[in-house]
Amino acid sequence: MIRIALVGFGTVGRAVARILWEGEERPLTLAHICNRRVERKIVDWAPDAVAWTSDFGDVLRSDADVVVELIGGLEPAGDWIRQALEAGKSVVTANKQVMAHAGADLMRMAAERQRHLLFEGAVAGGIPIIRAVREGLAGDRLRRVLGVLNGTCNYMLTRMEAGQVSFDDALREAQERGYAEADPTADVDGGDAQAKLAILSAVGLGRKVAAGAIPLRSIRPVEPVDFNYARRLGCTIRQVSRAEVSPGARGDVTASVQPMLVPLTSPLARAEGSQNVVVVDGSHGGETAFRGFGAGGDPTAVAIVSDLEAIARTGVAAPRSWRPPAAARVEPDFEAPQYLRFVIVDRPGIIASLAGVFWRHGLNIDSVLQEPDWPKSALPFVVTLEPCSSRAVQAALTEIGALDFHARAPVWMPILPRGERSS
Amino acid sequence: MIRIALVGFGTVGRAVARILWEGEERPLTLAHICNRRVERKIVDWAPDAVAWTSDFGDVLRSDADVVVELIGGLEPAGDWIRQALEAGKSVVTANKQVMAHAGADLMRMAAERQRHLLFEGAVAGGIPIIRAVREGLAGDRLRRVLGVLNGTCNYMLTRMEAGQVSFDDALREAQERGYAEADPTADVDGGDAQAKLAILSAVGLGRKVAAGAIPLRSIRPVEPVDFNYARRLGCTIRQVSRAEVSPGARGDVTASVQPMLVPLTSPLARAEGSQNVVVVDGSHGGETAFRGFGAGGDPTAVAIVSDLEAIARTGVAAPRSWRPPAAARVEPDFEAPQYLRFVIVDRPGIIASLAGVFWRHGLNIDSVLQEPDWPKSALPFVVTLEPCSSRAVQAALTEIGALDFHARAPVWMPILPRGERSS
Repeated sequence: MIRIALVGFGTVGRAVARILWEGEERPLTLAHICNRRVERKIVDWAPDAVAWTSDFGDVLRSDADVVVELIGGLEPAGDWIRQALEAGKSVVTANKQVMAHAGADLMRMAAERQRHLLFEGAVAGGIPIIRAVREGLAGDRLRRVLGVLNGTCNYMLTRMEAGQVSFDDALREAQERGYAEADPTADVDGGDAQAKLAILSAVGLGRKVAAGAIPLRSIRPVEPVDFNYARRLGCTIRQVSRAEVSPGARGDVTASVQPMLVPLTSPLARAEGSQNVVVVDGSHGGETAFRGFGAGGDPTAVAIVSDLEAIARTGVAAPRSWRPPAAARVEPDFEAPQYLRFVIVDRPGIIASLAGVFWRHGLNIDSVLQEPDWPKSALPFVVTLEPCSSRAVQAALTEIGALDFHARAPVWMPILPRGERSS
Repeated sequence: MIRIALVGFGTVGRAVARILWEGEERPLTLAHICNRRVERKIVDWAPDAVAWTSDFGDVLRSDADVVVELIGGLEPAGDWIRQALEAGKSVVTANKQVMAHAGADLMRMAAERQRHLLFEGAVAGGIPIIRAVREGLAGDRLRRVLGVLNGTCNYMLTRMEAGQVSFDDALREAQERGYAEADPTADVDGGDAQAKLAILSAVGLGRKVAAGAIPLRSIRPVEPVDFNYARRLGCTIRQVSRAEVSPGARGDVTASVQPMLVPLTSPLARAEGSQNVVVVDGSHGGETAFRGFGAGGDPTAVAIVSDLEAIARTGVAAPRSWRPPAAARVEPDFEAPQYLRFVIVDRPGIIASLAGVFWRHGLNIDSVLQEPDWPKSALPFVVTLEPCSSRAVQAALTEIGALDFHARAPVWMPILPRGERSS
């Protein structure tokens, strides 16, 4: 029997407790529960034998084999994980921030002490993607990871598309349903997915990057009209996290988190509501896609209990075999076809002046799309460009932004190349 | 360093050797290669240190830690796996027949000897589904497994649909491209998927069933015209493997392998060409879907090398923790809406006589579809029925088969209910 201490008894913690107590026979005993002002947290469906405490020191001094860290945030969570490992305990965590920023150090520390540090719940909740890339595809050499890693963004984007509602309305709905926090910054601006992508880069690609170095672009500028144009291009819009080992000898990583146009035939387009999708590309096995529920108490709890079962299988003494990921720099720039949406005060000559700017920047227009029935005072239209770098688009847009015909600031997104992914 | 003996040096064996020798740093040494008349098999890209032999006894007496069994078929493969375990070696195999028929016994034997017996390559090649259901979703309670498990069938069905080619032409194409054997029986009639489904039932649902007890229906009767009708119903056609824990106290398993109409929104419809898809349903984590390349040397080799890496991580002494699956009976019968396609010599009153038979059997017609422009001497049309059991359909079809208007024998397939799976 593995003895467990749960630290943090919120939604996920309670879901873990429910699975452990529901009667399925498991070699796992939930012995300790620690939470600030724990007296508010005590539930009547807990066995009498559980020890409740508000003091993390009690957990460190206890007979627990495994500490499950569910308090979230960088500190004190990181410090508590360190203390737990120092006290000879294994750790299971769903903390993406700690794992993204200090994962390699903590993994080394755990390996030296022959203790487990498992974090399946930190990325894509119910999809066992950490185990899949670390173990299930260990025999392959992975070159690329592509994902819809933030369920909040995906819920909002699918709502904006289906209901033609604005970003603000979609956000309000997501908040009412408990999919988004009062402060949605980490979700919509990409910080949450950034941490998850850094973890996947280390674990899947064997490349340790500074999480903060992965460039982010928010989904805030996306409007319902963009879905109409995307549909005309055979696409939808997703917040896409992407990391790829560069072909060069240094093995740097090209990475970004941003809204992209995604072909309807891509696995990424299949993420509905709060689902997550991860697609990995291996030199030998080709493309493998995973889809499931990325967040919420129950799917994350499944990930945590699966980690606890793994410890029960191997025993608390973990094998020492940890291969640290190689440090790598982040290259921000993918070449891709680009989608640019303008909202203009219409007058003759606008396309010509845009074409002139693109021409000076060496960019080739692929198509111009304009939906009917919009007022001339705020007329949306779309230009798509042949594959080019984000840098080139941004340079052209700086120049275009200074022109006098904009009713609103232009919006641009890369288009995930169609041929790049099998359907 | 884990020392490996490869037994069977065909397509998969060579792909394993290539991965192990290609220079990626791995704690794995391929030391022995065993094959009948091995002198024909020796390749010039092998390191000199490899010992080649035609005698499996040499492998048993060698210093190999792990035997990789790749000879396929029930015997002598099963016997050799037993001998290897008895000799204190761990075993990695891609042999679905042995694992489906003797897996539980072999797993017990391996656990008693504290040796590994891993078989990721036996099901869905490049998709790490065994590890996902045994470990990644160990924290959940899985109730249902649904899959496209045979890449040959899927290649043929997608070709029949895209090219409107006959079964025979699609089979010939699959054989020319190396996707199908000279004798395609195991693929098209379902025996291959049956073995894989039995393994998934044991490993994922914790239910050991007699593989041979899972009812099979061949894809041979499917014709190109069925894809046209399927499309009108918002569906395509797949060979679907399905196993589900029955709600009753005994926990029996309802299972089958058969062609089904699958809604285009289902993950199963997304299996293209020789791909495999597996969808599992957990009580806590909901639906999780996996897609990738199910067969071929390279994806299967990735699964095998991943198993070898797992042994290197844990060490050759395996933990004793094996929970045997519960023995369960197979219930063959799912309730589902049904698709029936007739090819008739047209005359008045046929629909009325069919309706009479359905009415006597308590079956309700949901729709009648007839495409234009077919000759009256061989006129295809389709009847769909509201949800009912396969048994009821078969009883009605026995009666209908005796009527005198058939130009060809009727074809029926269940329709995977639309609401049952999220899109």
